[in-house]
Amino acid sequence: MNLKLIFDSTKNTDLFYKIGIEVPDPFFFLDFGSRVLIFLDRRELAAFRRENKNNKIKALPLEPLIEKSKKIKDKTGSENKVIFQIFKDYKLFKKKVIVPRYFPLDIADFLRSKGVKLKVETCFYPERSVKSQKEKEIIGKNILIVRRAFLKIEKVLKDSSIKGKFLEYQGKILTSEFLKQEAEKVLLENKMMSVQGMIVSCGAHSAEPHHRGKGKIMSQKTIICDIFPRNKDNGYFGDMTRTYFKGKASKEILNMHDAVIKARSAVFKKIKHNAEISEIHKEAVKVFQDKGYDIGEKGFIHGTGHGLGLDVHESPFISSSSKGKLKKGNVITIEPGLYYPKIGGVRIEDVIYVTENGYENLTNHSEKMVIN
Amino acid sequence: MNLKLIFDSTKNTDLFYKIGIEVPDPFFFLDFGSRVLIFLDRRELAAFRRENKNNKIKALPLEPLIEKSKKIKDKTGSENKVIFQIFKDYKLFKKKVIVPRYFPLDIADFLRSKGVKLKVETCFYPERSVKSQKEKEIIGKNILIVRRAFLKIEKVLKDSSIKGKFLEYQGKILTSEFLKQEAEKVLLENKMMSVQGMIVSCGAHSAEPHHRGKGKIMSQKTIICDIFPRNKDNGYFGDMTRTYFKGKASKEILNMHDAVIKARSAVFKKIKHNAEISEIHKEAVKVFQDKGYDIGEKGFIHGTGHGLGLDVHESPFISSSSKGKLKKGNVITIEPGLYYPKIGGVRIEDVIYVTENGYENLTNHSEKMVIN
Repeated sequence: MNLKLIFDSTKNTDLFYKIGIEVPDPFFFLDFGSRVLIFLDRRELAAFRRENKNNKIKALPLEPLIEKSKKIKDKTGSENKVIFQIFKDYKLFKKKVIVPRYFPLDIADFLRSKGVKLKVETCFYPERSVKSQKEKEIIGKNILIVRRAFLKIEKVLKDSSIKGKFLEYQGKILTSEFLKQEAEKVLLENKMMSVQGMIVSCGAHSAEPHHRGKGKIMSQKTIICDIFPRNKDNGYFGDMTRTYFKGKASKEILNMHDAVIKARSAVFKKIKHNAEISEIHKEAVKVFQDKGYDIGEKGFIHGTGHGLGLDVHESPFISSSSKGKLKKGNVITIEPGLYYPKIGGVRIEDVIYVTENGYENLTNHSEKMVIN
Repeated sequence: MNLKLIFDSTKNTDLFYKIGIEVPDPFFFLDFGSRVLIFLDRRELAAFRRENKNNKIKALPLEPLIEKSKKIKDKTGSENKVIFQIFKDYKLFKKKVIVPRYFPLDIADFLRSKGVKLKVETCFYPERSVKSQKEKEIIGKNILIVRRAFLKIEKVLKDSSIKGKFLEYQGKILTSEFLKQEAEKVLLENKMMSVQGMIVSCGAHSAEPHHRGKGKIMSQKTIICDIFPRNKDNGYFGDMTRTYFKGKASKEILNMHDAVIKARSAVFKKIKHNAEISEIHKEAVKVFQDKGYDIGEKGFIHGTGHGLGLDVHESPFISSSSKGKLKKGNVITIEPGLYYPKIGGVRIEDVIYVTENGYENLTNHSEKMVIN
């Protein structure tokens, strides 16, 4: 059995995945497969031991190791001495050691200088992409909270009136910033937080998928709302996108919205255990191409979706270059979209749980665009 | 001039420090000292160029590089091919290349296999610890927002009444979770967010400095509130701690609070440009020891403070093992505290700007503990 070694805080989601308790400062983590060893200072250790319910994880005090390691004659830093001491105490020098991409290079260099064979694994815990029943439920509940934020946005848009090019809400011009703040309040009340931001973008901004949106919300323009907060209690994300429109939508925009919904339906039909991932993406491409939309530089310019869990974007990624198959238990977003700078953007994003013969939609929210 | 090389997203605060614009996915960043080169995909490039006002930063499209790099015959990943192509185009193979600790190990291995000399720098941009006037103002404004959250907490505590062991606010038992949510609402309205959590801990919990706090707030027990949110607009943190108490404080607790204030005053007197950092910490230790408190396992169990900026904990760190001197322009926390499991914890934390002959206190908030 290989040894998996990490030196990081639990901001590293692979580490959080395995130990499930937040530790704010970097520490040594050794995963032997059947058991996990971690070394924490006295401040963290007591808290960890109290919260930890997984008997495969053994948390040990760091201080005795530091003391012992001071006798090592190497002219090197204390972290290197500590990991050397650990390798000595547990006789690990002959193990093949797997480390993540973002493993401290100075520690890697030191271990290699001592003859340790390191192998970099870019996908450190591939099993993360297959969710347990409990993880599915956690993400499902997160999505319910995200939906409440969307209901709030829909309510504000409904209660807004068109004033020429803009919208007015409670006597003020409606802005992207206001909508984001209203949505964030709902998330906050439910222990979720947009730690990586939130998109409420309108008009030309909405034609750039990564634009977070700012300034006045316009009538007669699409409004893309993409909310992907993290739950402070469980660490998992939610993710959902809807596109809204206030006013009388042109045929052009109605057609784009219709095409996105059709692409989504076509993709849904292909989803099941063992479906080829690249084929999923091709299905969306096909719908858009058949309707005369562009693929690549404009039109449909991104992948069809991504895995969702402790990271907002994680494996499996669903795009033209994807390899491999879907597996039952994957929790993925399906988010076809169309983007034309002069018209705007339209995107709809649901979260899907892959099953043996199909899928469950964890989002189940109306995709109605025009709100008047 | 050495080349500094990073491959990361702007979650890497060294990278954000240099380019000042958020980029969510990893990209290649090359800092030649006099100028910076970055390579972004078409989605990010347009947005970056529009926002960027620093003419030393040149943002170039990634796609042509990817195309060109496909001709490289190496059996390696596309990121490695891209960085190889960059090194070829800009003739960088003989440069000494500085990389951060958390540089992707697979890319490091590849570059070294091509003869590139990499040097790991754990403190990548040491100049980050000396803040500009603008940075000082940004952090000062952040602290003002954090203070508003404290005013809210103080108001809720004042309006709460003692019901035996607990507190009642608006007909309900007051909890840590409620106080955190009320504080977070104030932060949110001002574009700040507790991306790394917030501490409102009471009684035995408050005796563990890292305990985030949970459950009912108790009367006759210390309540430590430590709020350290990030500003969504400018990326900088604020950080502040106060300790509150509802009821009649024992002599023991009043003495602890008094000792913490005295340690703070003694430390403040030592702060100025070129002051030895370890001496700053020793000053707090001395005050506590003189009053008979413990140092280490209980009593004063942590460092005296830390730098504050784009990271909530950054250089300079003020502890017994610190080396070096304070510099004018350092923005640091001063946060002496005392912790006894059976009594509770007391901590007061201000943010200080170091000047030629002393300091400016950016916090300037009452340290009154007992609220009745």
